[in-house]
Amino acid sequence: MVRQPTRAGVRDAAAKIARILPPTPLYVVRLGGADVAFKAESLQPVGAFKIRGAWHRLTALDEATRAKGVVAFSSGNHAQGIAWAAKRLGMPATIVMPADAPAAKRDGTLALGAEIVTYDRATGNREQIAGSLAEARGATLVPSFDDPWVIEGQGSTGIEAAAQMQDAGLPPPARMVTPCGGGGLAAGLALALPEAAITVVEPAGWDDMRRSLEAGWIEPVGPNPPPTACDALQTQRVSALTFDVLSRRGAEGVAVSEAETAAAQRWAAEKLRLVIEPGGAVALAALLAGKVKPEPGMLVLLSGGNVDLAAYARAMAG
Amino acid sequence: MVRQPTRAGVRDAAAKIARILPPTPLYVVRLGGADVAFKAESLQPVGAFKIRGAWHRLTALDEATRAKGVVAFSSGNHAQGIAWAAKRLGMPATIVMPADAPAAKRDGTLALGAEIVTYDRATGNREQIAGSLAEARGATLVPSFDDPWVIEGQGSTGIEAAAQMQDAGLPPPARMVTPCGGGGLAAGLALALPEAAITVVEPAGWDDMRRSLEAGWIEPVGPNPPPTACDALQTQRVSALTFDVLSRRGAEGVAVSEAETAAAQRWAAEKLRLVIEPGGAVALAALLAGKVKPEPGMLVLLSGGNVDLAAYARAMAG
Repeated sequence: MVRQPTRAGVRDAAAKIARILPPTPLYVVRLGGADVAFKAESLQPVGAFKIRGAWHRLTALDEATRAKGVVAFSSGNHAQGIAWAAKRLGMPATIVMPADAPAAKRDGTLALGAEIVTYDRATGNREQIAGSLAEARGATLVPSFDDPWVIEGQGSTGIEAAAQMQDAGLPPPARMVTPCGGGGLAAGLALALPEAAITVVEPAGWDDMRRSLEAGWIEPVGPNPPPTACDALQTQRVSALTFDVLSRRGAEGVAVSEAETAAAQRWAAEKLRLVIEPGGAVALAALLAGKVKPEPGMLVLLSGGNVDLAAYARAMAG
Repeated sequence: MVRQPTRAGVRDAAAKIARILPPTPLYVVRLGGADVAFKAESLQPVGAFKIRGAWHRLTALDEATRAKGVVAFSSGNHAQGIAWAAKRLGMPATIVMPADAPAAKRDGTLALGAEIVTYDRATGNREQIAGSLAEARGATLVPSFDDPWVIEGQGSTGIEAAAQMQDAGLPPPARMVTPCGGGGLAAGLALALPEAAITVVEPAGWDDMRRSLEAGWIEPVGPNPPPTACDALQTQRVSALTFDVLSRRGAEGVAVSEAETAAAQRWAAEKLRLVIEPGGAVALAALLAGKVKPEPGMLVLLSGGNVDLAAYARAMAG
């Protein structure tokens, strides 16, 4: 049987991460009569919460396994999270990326000392390439969300945020609102804070978790999903691990438009002075668009801040 | 004789501020072969370091004086810093602002509970209006830089950053590079860290501190200074208090162009995921433009993050 992520695992992850990374800032803003807490995971090294799951997963490996290295496939934040954690542990890291990945993300991953293996997005299968590489080298393959350690690691931000909310004199988290791609962060948060309700937010047309939660079984995205600026949330299908946690918990799903997401990016720039990438801004977008009602004890995740400057300039221009 | 700002005063300010505000984040980036530390004062409540000088100044007043309130003139960050500190101390605050001040800054100041008195930029004299108001009410007038407490308060960021650099395993601050308007922050930093050299950076054409430091006496900006996006640094003439501290210390001055400043804003968005206003980005601009050479122990101030979104979008578009 597959290992299931647990609350104890999330707490263990939080303790491990507290030893190497300072808490990301928490900002409290009065919105619709309630004090809403915003957790700025965009300010992690590498600019996203992904560093948490990567650290928890790689530190769970024994020395001999670590020496054989790690393989991941991702063109974005997960790649850099894995590369960062591997570098710090002195592990070789190989990232499988499409040949047309943005230069900034390629360069960021290379700067962290990872090897990059490229494939043709039209003809190659990245899961297969990564799997074969890992097998040939005896390296550990770390998926971006379908993994109990990764889920537990991402959830550590909930433990951290709850402590910060207490320090700020706020009530305990009553509802968490979080961006959702494959659901690793959302499931981790659900495990971290069992007393809080949870709302997951996705881009319209990519709301497979919302549809799955409503159906009661896993539904992939429909055929030909629309273009979205939320590159970090373009997951075709959530995993059993993340879906089960969120479904058992009664999580709710909400979808937001591209315009609502860009408006949230502008709000974050003006009010919080933070650069938030589209996929990192959808939870805030749901609030600002009135799709989620602010309430006391609300915790909103700003999950990443890695932007393409040209696209960001367009979002700022409105 | 006018009270002079002192190092002991800066240390006192740092201790007082540590009791109410968490340290702003410090980010270390490898640049030109050196680890350079960036201090994100843009992430203060109200989005700028000005909150420090305001807090140190207002907390130095006795209860009876506090009850009579505070008056300041500013259309920007100093106004919000004073309003924030006054609100926290339960003091009435009056801010003298030009009638055409940006709506966002007006609203921010009003939201902090301050009263706003407007004047016509063409015909009114804000110093005179603020002075008369303060006199009539027995309130304390707090200048934005020409004040020993304000200078000491701003310098507290240097004490905070030095401790963070030590925690990060960096050498002690060897050179501080800071944006400079009237010189309050720069003079405070010089007092805070007497072992470190200091470079002040101004927008081209508004480099009165640079010219004054070279001349050995106070030189105002020339007639018809060019337009600049650095609204926070448009000081016509530095004060004796700030000039004396920096001049005795052998501070150097550098000027940067508008294009160099916008490039620094883009770099901060992409590499640090921070929204930095033009005036807050000039020290970084001097580094990126090669006008200041990165060196071990370098501390660079990112002093503010309050942007006008339309102008920010243009800067991002490059």
